[in-house]
Amino acid sequence: MREAFTEQLDEVSDELVNMTRMVGSAMNRATQALLDADLKLAEEVIAADAAIDTLTSEIEDNCFDLIALQGPVASDLRVVIGALRIASSLERMGDLAEHVAKQARMRYPNTAIPQELRGTFAEMGGIAESIVSQTGAVIATKDVSLATDIARHDQQMDYFHRELFRIVLAPSWSHGVEAAVDVTLLSRFYERYADHAVSVTKRVVTIVTGEPYAGVALDSAG
Amino acid sequence: MREAFTEQLDEVSDELVNMTRMVGSAMNRATQALLDADLKLAEEVIAADAAIDTLTSEIEDNCFDLIALQGPVASDLRVVIGALRIASSLERMGDLAEHVAKQARMRYPNTAIPQELRGTFAEMGGIAESIVSQTGAVIATKDVSLATDIARHDQQMDYFHRELFRIVLAPSWSHGVEAAVDVTLLSRFYERYADHAVSVTKRVVTIVTGEPYAGVALDSAG
Repeated sequence: MREAFTEQLDEVSDELVNMTRMVGSAMNRATQALLDADLKLAEEVIAADAAIDTLTSEIEDNCFDLIALQGPVASDLRVVIGALRIASSLERMGDLAEHVAKQARMRYPNTAIPQELRGTFAEMGGIAESIVSQTGAVIATKDVSLATDIARHDQQMDYFHRELFRIVLAPSWSHGVEAAVDVTLLSRFYERYADHAVSVTKRVVTIVTGEPYAGVALDSAG
Repeated sequence: MREAFTEQLDEVSDELVNMTRMVGSAMNRATQALLDADLKLAEEVIAADAAIDTLTSEIEDNCFDLIALQGPVASDLRVVIGALRIASSLERMGDLAEHVAKQARMRYPNTAIPQELRGTFAEMGGIAESIVSQTGAVIATKDVSLATDIARHDQQMDYFHRELFRIVLAPSWSHGVEAAVDVTLLSRFYERYADHAVSVTKRVVTIVTGEPYAGVALDSAG
């Protein structure tokens, strides 16, 4: 019984790691589509979201079966419930990547962002890539020391998010209202993406340590 | 055993209904704070979010205990897992109300929205009020026929959301970039609030009917 439980739980954990790869790849390609006004790539990201949703449902079903058939209690149950929530957050990260791709598609053949902000969005895409890859590593290894790095990445993302607001609202902004609106929404999608990665990390830390994470600024995400 | 399960589940259901009232009141007051540039009210909404978060944790603990102690399977287990997710969505609705209040606070003593858009935001606040109150009714009564009305309210919210984009992006927009950015974010908060209400409703429908809701346009929310 115990062995079957551990085995099935390992499978769920592998699926979650797989999901971090999928939503990582989605955000990477969405960022590329945004920077290059690449319609084909944007369409691919949008189409690929269905596979992420399907995997989410599979993980949910597996967690459900695990609870129903193995009847875990105490910390075992917390792990399975935690996995369910991690799947929800990852699914939402996939949605946010899709939102970025849709914004790129909407403005095609133009780019949704002014040339001078390409560097900032490239940075944010890079942070998204790092944070999701480390989130996958936390799930795979249960090495909670990675949480510090993830929190740092989240702070960097917040920095760029605030920076974009500053640029858009400065009197020197010369790209008009539409570009300002686009940048505002896009920036929020990246910021929320990092928030969800933090949220996943906090769940892993809570599962591993049995206590809420109380380290550096793992701010709340919902 | 069965009786204890039903009793505890009823308690969870009551707590969820209570939560819809709290996040409904939060969005109502946030809208008022936004329309009137009422700093005190905005501060109250922001402070009150902690109570919503506490209730979320209590519901989570109760669901957890229910699973661990009663060992529900099949449809009973689905109800409890569904309740966990409903609590997450409602908690997020509370966050969105808090975001609206924070936006109102940030622009005080000015209003965050131009005079001419007051009517639209008042409408969106009204829709938020209706949708959350009906969401509470769905949870309390399990009357899934209410889902049609909720979907209709969500469509109205989407309509105003698109309408605001149209106004902000029109050449006649005379309020500058900052107001455009504020309106964009605020509009998104209301739209996401309605999305989460739809998401809650879909979960109740799935629990009651045993099948995913396939009615009018209950679009995906995440």
